Amino acid sequence: MNYINKTEQELKSELSELKEKYEELRALNLSYDMTRGKPASAQLDLSSEMLDKKYLGNLKTAKNMDCRNYGILDGIPEAKELMASIIGTNPENVIVCGNSSLNIMYDTLMKFMVFGVSKSATPWCKADKIKFLCPVPGYDRHFKITEQLGIEMINVPLTENGPDMALVKELVKDPAVKGMWSVPKYSNPTGTVYSDEVIKELASMDCAADDFRIFWDDAYTVHYLYDAPAKQLSIIEACAEAGNPDRAVVFTSTSKITFSGSGLSAVASSVANIEYFKWHMNVQTIGHDKINQLRHVNFLKDYDGVIAHMKKHADIIRPKFEVVLETLESELSGLGILTWSNPKGGYFISIDTLPGCADKVVAMAKDCGVVFTPAGATFPYGKDPENKNIRIAPTLPVIEDLKEAVKILCICVKICSINKILEER
Amino acid sequence: MNYINKTEQELKSELSELKEKYEELRALNLSYDMTRGKPASAQLDLSSEMLDKKYLGNLKTAKNMDCRNYGILDGIPEAKELMASIIGTNPENVIVCGNSSLNIMYDTLMKFMVFGVSKSATPWCKADKIKFLCPVPGYDRHFKITEQLGIEMINVPLTENGPDMALVKELVKDPAVKGMWSVPKYSNPTGTVYSDEVIKELASMDCAADDFRIFWDDAYTVHYLYDAPAKQLSIIEACAEAGNPDRAVVFTSTSKITFSGSGLSAVASSVANIEYFKWHMNVQTIGHDKINQLRHVNFLKDYDGVIAHMKKHADIIRPKFEVVLETLESELSGLGILTWSNPKGGYFISIDTLPGCADKVVAMAKDCGVVFTPAGATFPYGKDPENKNIRIAPTLPVIEDLKEAVKILCICVKICSINKILEER
Repeated sequence: MNYINKTEQELKSELSELKEKYEELRALNLSYDMTRGKPASAQLDLSSEMLDKKYLGNLKTAKNMDCRNYGILDGIPEAKELMASIIGTNPENVIVCGNSSLNIMYDTLMKFMVFGVSKSATPWCKADKIKFLCPVPGYDRHFKITEQLGIEMINVPLTENGPDMALVKELVKDPAVKGMWSVPKYSNPTGTVYSDEVIKELASMDCAADDFRIFWDDAYTVHYLYDAPAKQLSIIEACAEAGNPDRAVVFTSTSKITFSGSGLSAVASSVANIEYFKWHMNVQTIGHDKINQLRHVNFLKDYDGVIAHMKKHADIIRPKFEVVLETLESELSGLGILTWSNPKGGYFISIDTLPGCADKVVAMAKDCGVVFTPAGATFPYGKDPENKNIRIAPTLPVIEDLKEAVKILCICVKICSINKILEER
Repeated sequence: MNYINKTEQELKSELSELKEKYEELRALNLSYDMTRGKPASAQLDLSSEMLDKKYLGNLKTAKNMDCRNYGILDGIPEAKELMASIIGTNPENVIVCGNSSLNIMYDTLMKFMVFGVSKSATPWCKADKIKFLCPVPGYDRHFKITEQLGIEMINVPLTENGPDMALVKELVKDPAVKGMWSVPKYSNPTGTVYSDEVIKELASMDCAADDFRIFWDDAYTVHYLYDAPAKQLSIIEACAEAGNPDRAVVFTSTSKITFSGSGLSAVASSVANIEYFKWHMNVQTIGHDKINQLRHVNFLKDYDGVIAHMKKHADIIRPKFEVVLETLESELSGLGILTWSNPKGGYFISIDTLPGCADKVVAMAKDCGVVFTPAGATFPYGKDPENKNIRIAPTLPVIEDLKEAVKILCICVKICSINKILEER
C-alpha cells in the first residue's frame, strides 16, 4: 500500500519496527562499499590473458612500424580501426590516446579555453562568462572539470529519451552557452539511451555561439547487459548531415572493456576537428603507448571480438543489477516512496527518493556500514535541487553483499520517507 | 692548416676537388636519416624481456592494490620510489605519470596559464606578456610549447657550466620573465652538465616574478656514456635550501631507458607543488597506467638496476658517438671551420660551423642524401641568430652509415666554409 494512504498510526508503528531493525543491523558493524563504478576482479580476469607476450607478435604494426620506438601521433592504424568500430565512425575521424578518456576531455576543454575550438576561434578564456549545459543527473567528474575551469553549469533534466530538448533549444540561444556534457548511451547514472530524434535535434539546433561544442562521452557504448548494445545514430554523422560537422566531440575508452587503469582511450570528431587536435598534439606529445595499442588490437581483434568480450562482462554483472532491482521491487514496490531506473547497459542504477530525502538516506546507510556516492554528486556543484537522487554502483560487490546492502538501503528509504510524510502532515 | 691562413689559390683549388667529390657522392643516391634522437632497435631489445608476463607477478602492488583497476593518482608506491631514485629525490616529491614527460611539461604549462602556479597565484594567461628564458642551443620541442602558448622566448647562451648566469640574473629582474627551460645534464644538443655552482645560483637568484618557475627537464639524468652518470646537485634541494622551495619543477622519463613510446614519466618538485598538481590531477584523470608501472619496477628493480641497464645502452651507443667524433677529428681538426661538443652522456653531438653556414651545410647534406634536423631548430622560433648550430643524433643509424654520413657532412662543411671565407676576402 502506498505510504501516502496510510494513517499516522500505521506509519508510526511501522517506523518503530523499522528503527528497531535498523539498530540491529547497525550493531553488526557491516561494511559495504557501493560508491564507484569499478569492475569486479572477475571482470578484470577476462582480459588478463591480454598481458601475455604472444599478443604483441613481433612488436610491429602491419606496416612494419616498431611499436617500442617513438612515432605515430594518432595511434597505430589497426588501433584507430578498432576504436572507430567501437564508436561507429571511420578511422580518419579518430585519434587513439592514452589510458584515460577523462583526461582527453579535460585536455580538450583546456585547449578550447586557451586556444579556442579552432585556429581562427577566440579562446574561451577570453570570454567574460562561459556556460555549459549539464543533463542531470549526470557524471560527477564531468561537472568537476567544468567547475574547476569556472564554467557556469546549467541543469537540464534528462527525460527517458535524453535531455529535455525544449529547454536545451531555449538555453542555446544564449551566446555564453558554449557547450554541453552528454553520456548518450546507458547514461551515468540513469541508463538513459538518447533517442535518434534527440540526437538529430542536438545536431541541428540553432546555437547562438558558433563555437558551441557537445562533449559526447560515449563511455558505455558497447556495455550492454542484454542481447546486444542499443543501436544509436552517430552524432558525428548527424552533425555532418545537419551542416554542423564540427559540433560534437566523441570520447570513449576500453577502461571497462579491458583494464580500468590500462586501457585505450579515443577521441572522435569531424576530420577538421581531428586535424586541429593533432596540430596541438604535435606540440604536446610524441605519441601514446603503441605497445598497449598493439596488445589491445591483437586481443580484441575487431568489433565482433569486442561484442563477444562484452557479453562475458554482461554475464558477470547482469545478475548483480538484477539482484538490486529485484530487492528494490520486493521491498519497495507500490509504496510510492522510491523510483528507480531499469538500465539495459552501463554501470549504474539511479534511484529517486521523495524530495528532500536523498542526503538523509545516504547518511543513514553510511551509519549502518553501507557507503554510497554522496547525495548530490550526480549534479553540478554537488547540489541536487530536489535532494532525491542516489547512484547505485552494483558491479564491484559480490551478489550476497549487494543483496544485504540494498536491503539496508530500503530500510533507510522507508524510515526517511515515513519521517518526511509524518512531518508534512 | 687553418683555412683562414690559406691563400685564395689554395682554397679555390681545394674547393674544386671537394665539389667533384661531392658530386660523385651525390650520384650514389644515398639515404641517411640523422634527424631525431631515437634509440636503435638493439637498444629497444634490451627491454623487450620486460613485456614478459612474469614481470607482472600477481598484478598487485606490495600493498595488495590490483594494478588492473581504477585507483592511485600519483603512481604505485614502488614506482614512485624507482622514479625518485632516478631523479635523486624522495617519493613524496614525485608523481609518476604516463608515457611522455613532454606531455607533463605541456600540461604543467597549461595549468600555469589557466590556473597559475598555485591556488592563490594569478593565472599566467591574465598577464599582458609572459617571457621564458631559453638556454641555447636547446630542445626544439620545449620551444614549440612556449611558442604555441604565445610566450616570448629569450635566448640565453649556454656556457660549458650551464646558462650564462650573469645574463640570467639580469633578465629575471623583469617581472614578465615567469620561467626558464633547462636540460641540466647532458643537455640536448650540447651535452652540457650544469655545474653545482650554476644550480645554486638558479635556486637562489632574485626574481622579480614571485611565480618564476624553472622547467627542469632531466631527460638524460642516467644516460651516461662512460663510467657513471655525472654527479649533480639536486635542484629541488638547492631551491629548498635557498628558501625558494617551489621554484623548480623536474621532469624525467624512462623513454630512453626502456621503450620510447611505452615508458614511465615522472614530475618532481616541492611537496607543496606536488600537492597542487595532485589537486588538479584529481579532476583531470583517474590515474595513470599502473600495470606498466609494475612492469617497470619488477624489470628495473632499483637505482642500481637502472644504472646497470644504462651501461648496456652505453655499450651500444658509445661506439656511435665515437665514430662521429673521430671522423670530425680526422677530417676537420685544425681547419678552424667547425667546433663540436664532446659529450659524456645524452643523445646528441652539437656542432658549430662558421657563422652563417649552418643552413647551407644542412641543405647541401640533404641534397646528398644525409638528412639532419633543420638548422635553427635548436633555437626558439627556429632562428639561430648566428646560423651556425647543427644537431647530430648518432643513436639510430648503424656505425657504417654514421661514418659515411659524417664524411659527407665534413665535405659540406668544407665547401660552405671555403665559400664563406672567399666571399669575405
